[in-house]
Amino acid sequence: MQKPKLQIALDTYDLPAALGPLQKAAAQIDVIEVGTILCLSEGMPAVRAIKSLFPDKVVLADVRIAEAGSIISKMAFDAGADWVSVVSGAAPSSFEVVLAEAQARGGDMQIELSDGWNWEMAQRWADMGVRQVIFKRSRDLEAQGTLTWGEQDFETISRLDAMGFNVTVTGGVKIKDIPLFAGVPVYIFIAGRAIRAAADPLAAATEFQTVIAETWV
Amino acid sequence: MQKPKLQIALDTYDLPAALGPLQKAAAQIDVIEVGTILCLSEGMPAVRAIKSLFPDKVVLADVRIAEAGSIISKMAFDAGADWVSVVSGAAPSSFEVVLAEAQARGGDMQIELSDGWNWEMAQRWADMGVRQVIFKRSRDLEAQGTLTWGEQDFETISRLDAMGFNVTVTGGVKIKDIPLFAGVPVYIFIAGRAIRAAADPLAAATEFQTVIAETWV
Repeated sequence: MQKPKLQIALDTYDLPAALGPLQKAAAQIDVIEVGTILCLSEGMPAVRAIKSLFPDKVVLADVRIAEAGSIISKMAFDAGADWVSVVSGAAPSSFEVVLAEAQARGGDMQIELSDGWNWEMAQRWADMGVRQVIFKRSRDLEAQGTLTWGEQDFETISRLDAMGFNVTVTGGVKIKDIPLFAGVPVYIFIAGRAIRAAADPLAAATEFQTVIAETWV
Repeated sequence: MQKPKLQIALDTYDLPAALGPLQKAAAQIDVIEVGTILCLSEGMPAVRAIKSLFPDKVVLADVRIAEAGSIISKMAFDAGADWVSVVSGAAPSSFEVVLAEAQARGGDMQIELSDGWNWEMAQRWADMGVRQVIFKRSRDLEAQGTLTWGEQDFETISRLDAMGFNVTVTGGVKIKDIPLFAGVPVYIFIAGRAIRAAADPLAAATEFQTVIAETWV
């Protein structure tokens, strides 16, 4: 089983606040996410600046497309994004349009599994050629106080993997959570504040990578 | 019954492309929507520029909040937005957080009724004090070829109005569609390309206002 990659989520009010921690942690980061908040605060110039600084990293523009998929994905790819995100509740035509745009650019599309997705939808995406999904714990479960990752999450991730998806895992992933995922086919872990807001972002990212490597030996 | 207002949706790849038509049509516009595409392409400076140019108009930042409601709404209000949009599928806590932020700023929040909303949710929003919803035709109905507005749409709008909501109507509203809404309690009609891409944006907006005034005599 492949070792999961580490993605930093940059959700700051402005670009400068993201650049400092990113510059420090970059050597240990595989994927850089320009978060929804940063996309909305600074627009596509934020994507352009980050790709310009880190041309060899995968850059995800977390634009969370729900409609106007053609226009928004073009904008993001033009700005240098390698990947763009689409929400699972998007207009059905959006998936095809964005996937085609991504493939034409040598990029990719991730579908964010929001409340309301189901296995029938997932099968349609798989049949369509979608390769990446983003799995987060259900807000309802979080609200009920299910605060740690559990068997139900791992089964869902494994089933998505078996369908052919690379599964990104997000939603308050902490370093201490990583060993819980031993044997689970995670493609990417997302960490946001755990790296960005750390006193030493490089040390935090390094610790994530170390624990990931120890868990997926 | 109050005469509906006219909202221009600005969904361009960049700010300059929006400013030209807006400047021409502004005298006939009640609400200026900085569309999702423009928010993502230029970020909050687009909202700031438009409010600076038109301080007396209502400016809606169509940021379509799904989560991180507190941060995104603060960003938009700080930039000068009067209203912000939240999608109906947002985390339940988002509605309360954004509404509180809006009320603290003397602004407002609009809930965009995406596929999957239901009357139980609408009642909860009404009980919570939400005053504005955005109604668009179901994508499924559009896909089935139901291309004109019909009785089912009008009943839904009337029922939402009876619950206390001001209802914004969007989704390919053309001038010739307006008279169909006679007697329907529409609060705002949104027009995008019908004004922005018109050879004469002022003439197009004026015609919308004229037909609205004739329909709601």
